[in-house]
Amino acid sequence: MDSLTNYKKNTKRSKKIFENSERLHVNGVHHNIRRFEPYPFVTKAAKGKYLIDVDSIRYTDYWMGHWSLILGHAPSKVQKEILRQIKDGWMFGTVNEQTIKLSELISKSVKVAEKIRYVTSGTEATMYAVRLARTFTGKKIVAKIDGGWHGYTSELLKTVNWPFSESESGGLLDEKKIVSIPYNDLNKSLKILEDVKDDLACTIIEPVLGGGGCIPAEKDYLKGIQEFVHRNNSLFILDEIVTGYRFRFGCFYPTLNLEPDIVTLGKIIGGGMTIGAICGKEEIMNYANTKSFEKAKRAYIGGGTFSANPVSMIAGATTLKILKKSNSIYRKIENFGKNARNNLNKVFDGKAITTGRGSLFLTHFLKNNINEIKNAQDAANCDIDKLRQYHFEIMANDKIFFLPSKLGAFSNAHTKSDVSKLIKASERFSQKM
Amino acid sequence: MDSLTNYKKNTKRSKKIFENSERLHVNGVHHNIRRFEPYPFVTKAAKGKYLIDVDSIRYTDYWMGHWSLILGHAPSKVQKEILRQIKDGWMFGTVNEQTIKLSELISKSVKVAEKIRYVTSGTEATMYAVRLARTFTGKKIVAKIDGGWHGYTSELLKTVNWPFSESESGGLLDEKKIVSIPYNDLNKSLKILEDVKDDLACTIIEPVLGGGGCIPAEKDYLKGIQEFVHRNNSLFILDEIVTGYRFRFGCFYPTLNLEPDIVTLGKIIGGGMTIGAICGKEEIMNYANTKSFEKAKRAYIGGGTFSANPVSMIAGATTLKILKKSNSIYRKIENFGKNARNNLNKVFDGKAITTGRGSLFLTHFLKNNINEIKNAQDAANCDIDKLRQYHFEIMANDKIFFLPSKLGAFSNAHTKSDVSKLIKASERFSQKM
Repeated sequence: MDSLTNYKKNTKRSKKIFENSERLHVNGVHHNIRRFEPYPFVTKAAKGKYLIDVDSIRYTDYWMGHWSLILGHAPSKVQKEILRQIKDGWMFGTVNEQTIKLSELISKSVKVAEKIRYVTSGTEATMYAVRLARTFTGKKIVAKIDGGWHGYTSELLKTVNWPFSESESGGLLDEKKIVSIPYNDLNKSLKILEDVKDDLACTIIEPVLGGGGCIPAEKDYLKGIQEFVHRNNSLFILDEIVTGYRFRFGCFYPTLNLEPDIVTLGKIIGGGMTIGAICGKEEIMNYANTKSFEKAKRAYIGGGTFSANPVSMIAGATTLKILKKSNSIYRKIENFGKNARNNLNKVFDGKAITTGRGSLFLTHFLKNNINEIKNAQDAANCDIDKLRQYHFEIMANDKIFFLPSKLGAFSNAHTKSDVSKLIKASERFSQKM
Repeated sequence: MDSLTNYKKNTKRSKKIFENSERLHVNGVHHNIRRFEPYPFVTKAAKGKYLIDVDSIRYTDYWMGHWSLILGHAPSKVQKEILRQIKDGWMFGTVNEQTIKLSELISKSVKVAEKIRYVTSGTEATMYAVRLARTFTGKKIVAKIDGGWHGYTSELLKTVNWPFSESESGGLLDEKKIVSIPYNDLNKSLKILEDVKDDLACTIIEPVLGGGGCIPAEKDYLKGIQEFVHRNNSLFILDEIVTGYRFRFGCFYPTLNLEPDIVTLGKIIGGGMTIGAICGKEEIMNYANTKSFEKAKRAYIGGGTFSANPVSMIAGATTLKILKKSNSIYRKIENFGKNARNNLNKVFDGKAITTGRGSLFLTHFLKNNINEIKNAQDAANCDIDKLRQYHFEIMANDKIFFLPSKLGAFSNAHTKSDVSKLIKASERFSQKM
């Protein structure tokens, strides 16, 4: 049976429910990427490494809540603390001690986090980071990476998806104040930045390009950008929403010997509950302080109704406490990642390259004479349809779930045998190619 | 004992914890308004009408989680459903059925919600509403109200706080594309709109000004704006994040015989869990559909990692189900509100006016010859220090909590005796004035 027929046969309840979802919702989903053809399955529950759909199919999940679940789904210690919190209330709208628990953990492991502010989402965090940089420097232009993804804030909605020459959306105004530079090409990037240096408020970069293709930055690239930015009195912002606490207990940047002025965090630090965070040097963060500056001169950073709610705070603090105690988790999932990358490269034998770092990985099916993946353009020019087909097939036939075309993340809930199963399924796909 | 000494005596643990919070966080808080002098108490738990702080002081709460908790804190039916959900996982990152349950309730009670998209916060919802309007109309200018508050999105960060002539923040770019009109002054408003009508994408208005002073719009005002906007091919957006499901089961706008094109929802529809929603006519919402438009021509509306997460969806759906079943809740809390407004007006005997509607109310201490509160300027020119002092005193002495200077909301957890206690405490304050 082909995989489409197989999928349809197994997901009859999902189909029915999703028809309802389409009637009520734009595209049937609440995040465009969650939609795939012919229809996405509907999740009923999630535990450990598994997503279980409404037809009781159990998938080994590599999507892991947009990569926020480094401990797997519903890990028991985190679950226990959340349940306890729900009994004490979930929306205080006032100061709570849970927030301090999380911040103590972050401030001791992220040097630049001299001051922290929690917000509701990563989209909010990057919006505020840019606002802070513009306020602090008095300059206007923001530089981002071709294929860099920082959420939906209008401040950074440019050159996200291929082709980078086209606008990302109607209804935007600021695009002229955003310049975009090619990842891992220092010379070209510096040339573009040189032209705007007098009005350059900041650069903002993911140290591993996430949505853009799971591509680690070359060390010299980030070093070179940082050096230029600091020499020109602009801020060096790292968006570590994906990479923060993903490869080690703390941010990724110390591994690269970098010294950012601001980092944005999210995902893992909320343990799967809603969160975003802006962490920065005190001198910069102080520009949000209502006691230091009058409104027109400070950066208006709020938070919002849900910021620092006790559920997100306790879910995050418990997750980080577990990660701090058992550093072996990082070794374990990094090994899975390495193993997967090496073996997938063998399996696809020149037909595909699997990129990534640590526990993150993504397979690129080569075409258009591409033979290395250095940036988002390389990734976008690979065979995305083939990637989608690959992810769909192993979902339908092997119950291995990647959100079609998106990178995968190992969690502490995965085991060695999951890597073997993934390789085996990929071998079958490769042989049919 | 004066109320400051009293507060300090009772909140010794809060003081210590908040010192820690100040060391770690900008202003010690994650939403500027949560900070008040000398320091805010730290909440340990919340149940029914009560907030309980870390020194075990129990406050009758009128802040009610930024007014999101119409059933009070941690109502048992909602709590039970959340606990059940947490056991099944809290972050799927995929489609779930809980979302459809919430949307069925909304779509049947909000006519304009032909299509719904959930996002993570109110700030995100208004940002997307504006982006949709600009995309749909092809026009750029957005009109908002002097003192209108729609969250922190740069798209609407203008004329929020008095003085409205000053910029709200450093680091903004779009302010020229935002025009601001005076609430409840139709002639002046239409004159301003007339000047920009050719490039007017939308107006966005709270039907009861929330942060701007708890002031209901006059019916003819909103009707007049709507008529102008529609005549000029612009969109009429109502921000019902505060008012949605607050006065009746559904939005407030049908009561006013209005026909908005988009409404934004939040707060109550999430049952205190993280949420924002954009609801609109299909023809407009379809501009976010990835199948209908190429990227540069559609409105890029995402959602984000946490959008439509099953916990928020089930908390919201359960809350709305309870409200639908027991419409008497609305009658009850509206009576409390009326009673409070009438009696507070008597108690302050010309020294203050208590504005509001239904279960929402706020007391304005008159000065500067102001004798009615029609808009945010009137509210801002009242004696805010006196209001802060009033809220602080009844917090310290009577354990009645309003976030100092912010409007209060009755919930289903309040009782008649709470109104009497509030009136009594206010009498004492009035006599000392």
